[in-house]
Amino acid sequence: MDIFGKEYIDRVYRIIKGERFIHTDSLAENVGKDVWLRGWVYRIRSSSNYVFVILRDVNGIVQCIVTKNEVDRDTWERANGLYIESSFLVKGEVVKDERAPTGYEIHVKELYPVCVGEPFPISKDLSTEFLLDVRHLWVRSRRLTDIFKVRHYTLIYLREFFNKEGFFEIPPPIITKNACEGGSQVFQVDYFGEPAYLSESGQLYAEAFIYSHEKVYLYAPSFRAERSRTVRHLAEYWHLEPEAAWMFHDDNIRLQERMIEHVIRRLVENHGPLLEKLGRSPDSLKEIRAPFPRITYDEMVDVLNKKGLRFKWGDDPGADEEKALTQDYDVPLVIERYPRDTKAFYMKVDPDDERYVLNDDVLAPQGHGEIIGGSERIWDLEELIDSMKRFGLDPENPAYKWYVDLRRYGSVPHSGFGLGIERFLKWILNLDHIRDAIAFPRTINRVYP
Amino acid sequence: MDIFGKEYIDRVYRIIKGERFIHTDSLAENVGKDVWLRGWVYRIRSSSNYVFVILRDVNGIVQCIVTKNEVDRDTWERANGLYIESSFLVKGEVVKDERAPTGYEIHVKELYPVCVGEPFPISKDLSTEFLLDVRHLWVRSRRLTDIFKVRHYTLIYLREFFNKEGFFEIPPPIITKNACEGGSQVFQVDYFGEPAYLSESGQLYAEAFIYSHEKVYLYAPSFRAERSRTVRHLAEYWHLEPEAAWMFHDDNIRLQERMIEHVIRRLVENHGPLLEKLGRSPDSLKEIRAPFPRITYDEMVDVLNKKGLRFKWGDDPGADEEKALTQDYDVPLVIERYPRDTKAFYMKVDPDDERYVLNDDVLAPQGHGEIIGGSERIWDLEELIDSMKRFGLDPENPAYKWYVDLRRYGSVPHSGFGLGIERFLKWILNLDHIRDAIAFPRTINRVYP
Repeated sequence: MDIFGKEYIDRVYRIIKGERFIHTDSLAENVGKDVWLRGWVYRIRSSSNYVFVILRDVNGIVQCIVTKNEVDRDTWERANGLYIESSFLVKGEVVKDERAPTGYEIHVKELYPVCVGEPFPISKDLSTEFLLDVRHLWVRSRRLTDIFKVRHYTLIYLREFFNKEGFFEIPPPIITKNACEGGSQVFQVDYFGEPAYLSESGQLYAEAFIYSHEKVYLYAPSFRAERSRTVRHLAEYWHLEPEAAWMFHDDNIRLQERMIEHVIRRLVENHGPLLEKLGRSPDSLKEIRAPFPRITYDEMVDVLNKKGLRFKWGDDPGADEEKALTQDYDVPLVIERYPRDTKAFYMKVDPDDERYVLNDDVLAPQGHGEIIGGSERIWDLEELIDSMKRFGLDPENPAYKWYVDLRRYGSVPHSGFGLGIERFLKWILNLDHIRDAIAFPRTINRVYP
Repeated sequence: MDIFGKEYIDRVYRIIKGERFIHTDSLAENVGKDVWLRGWVYRIRSSSNYVFVILRDVNGIVQCIVTKNEVDRDTWERANGLYIESSFLVKGEVVKDERAPTGYEIHVKELYPVCVGEPFPISKDLSTEFLLDVRHLWVRSRRLTDIFKVRHYTLIYLREFFNKEGFFEIPPPIITKNACEGGSQVFQVDYFGEPAYLSESGQLYAEAFIYSHEKVYLYAPSFRAERSRTVRHLAEYWHLEPEAAWMFHDDNIRLQERMIEHVIRRLVENHGPLLEKLGRSPDSLKEIRAPFPRITYDEMVDVLNKKGLRFKWGDDPGADEEKALTQDYDVPLVIERYPRDTKAFYMKVDPDDERYVLNDDVLAPQGHGEIIGGSERIWDLEELIDSMKRFGLDPENPAYKWYVDLRRYGSVPHSGFGLGIERFLKWILNLDHIRDAIAFPRTINRVYP
């Protein structure tokens, strides 16, 4: 007997189109009523007289109990044929039960598989490589589902913050002729037969907009062809880059601090249980209040050497140094005023000591690494040209010529920074690896799925 | 005498850091008071006893009058030395004056150029090519400034709509191994020595998330290596792509209609004067209410032939056809159920007539062209594999293998669509050319600045 024939499918369509479905977070207000739910099999076990199917939908899970004596034979057979991740519709009475994993259960009256499918290939104890190969299926895991919810809310609160502060969102170009950071590695694109590059940062383009919109931010993917195989590098990541006219170094740091404080506060206020489920206690985040501890690069060198790391002045701190610096902190650490030759050509030299620039990096606590890099920008034309020459860049090169122009007509003091969205999430959720903060991670050895 | 020496610069810094500045939209509440403003020279003219400088800031413009007898000699000289787009600080009394272009003017007491700079290279009657070459400066024009404000608000209202509807924003990958639309032209990237491609659409990836988040949307750049030189094609554009589980063809169209209605309503409610300034009467947009007129592909063929266009069944409507169809409409036109061979492999065949698919395109009024393409998706595994073969695609090809997998485990009916942000803005603002809806347009012959 074909229990999934054409007539069956028509019936399933009629139910989907005709019935009102509730989600698993509306059970409390439906106790004692018959309701329709739809979703996927999260777990399933059966005995001779019962099938216990845990239904998963976007909002949670609920146990559905199919009792052999209470349903017709087709329903019983269909319930027994379900696999993990099969999709199905179910109608039943909502019963409050303290023993049930989520406080409620469904006493099933009707159950219709939509797609039984094949046995799901993901089970426990699979290798990381395998899970990355089936990332398109692994994203259904409750952990990744929850992480992407937090990512969604984080973006809402970031935009909320900048919109309230009067920033305008501007779309940066992705394919460009220039490489923002100078020497770093970029991906090359065949642009109608000519070489072009994927943007490492939209900052230079954001700067073009401060003369009209004064305060702007970009939200876009950035690309770095880094050969790093670490837990905090991605070849493709998302970048939030605010830039503001009339903003100086100190205001820039304060803006960064207020942004972090705002996002964390809103997440804790509105999504405590979600954070808890991900193993991140909202209480541990609640204490994150600006201003954050702030040290200079030179103080950092001292701290590192006192900790026995033998760090040389003029070097760039790596993962080990960042870990040593932040492992004892529960709040971000701001490090400012780096030696100018360790940083980018566009950073403004410290007027008090021209060996340094007016920049800052924000390191996330507990070794999660740098989440923000920012600086006051050189706004004087001659100063910019001198700095470019010092860095070996040609101000007449088409890649930079337009950028130099920005200082030629009505330039103003300004500052900005870049926040790596995935790095930020890695810290907020205390993730082991940055790849879990993005949907389909791209790394040196992975561009699939 | 050096009127811009070090002492001068120090003074300018002290003023920027120490004074409270107001914007040009706060003049009414400051009449009779001395205020500080800062911005750029929008227009300037002088006589022997006066300099009239129109200051431009993010919120508008105001005329500042420098009277020779009322300021010191340095101030007078500095005011006379300003160019269009020079940046400056100004202190003066706010005076209400009906004759002034904006109803108020500033009687200047102090004026400090920040960067006089060089004569601005943009004046009237310059060629389009030149303006595109100096796009980084041209974005300061009041028209482009206003367009990017509308773009900013449009994105706010789009996200507001989808967030309220329970959609989660997911980040799609940009570098991929697959070309969504099958045969179309893609940009190739050198990915650590291997060929990869820039995404034309994140839709296939959005589909991976409907099993966990049920309703998702992407906002990301998409790339098409099209050789089209038209007023509505960009090689790089921004794409909003919603996708939802349990959603059918009709709901998909209704979602599109409600989205458009929401954004337009919010823009009209909150930004009427901005729209007016851009030459778009809010009244003309107010009437845009769903449902929109809807015809089938077959009806479209009839309409076109009645209009004398000799359009063959099975062809794809181009710019001329879209213009003929929509020039008499003030609201978008929905065209549904195209012949399957004119569309993509993943579209669900119309169960009532398998020559067609359950898709729709939304054409903007007045010939602005297609702004949305959407469809119900094939969700059955066998149906998908058959369709891929029909389109000459190999289901085992690594580019698609993972996508086929999505139908293998608990698949469900679902639909989605893609909205081209710049096309949408081109229509809303009735722009002549799509390039003005994006900051740094990328076309076949332009990747600079």
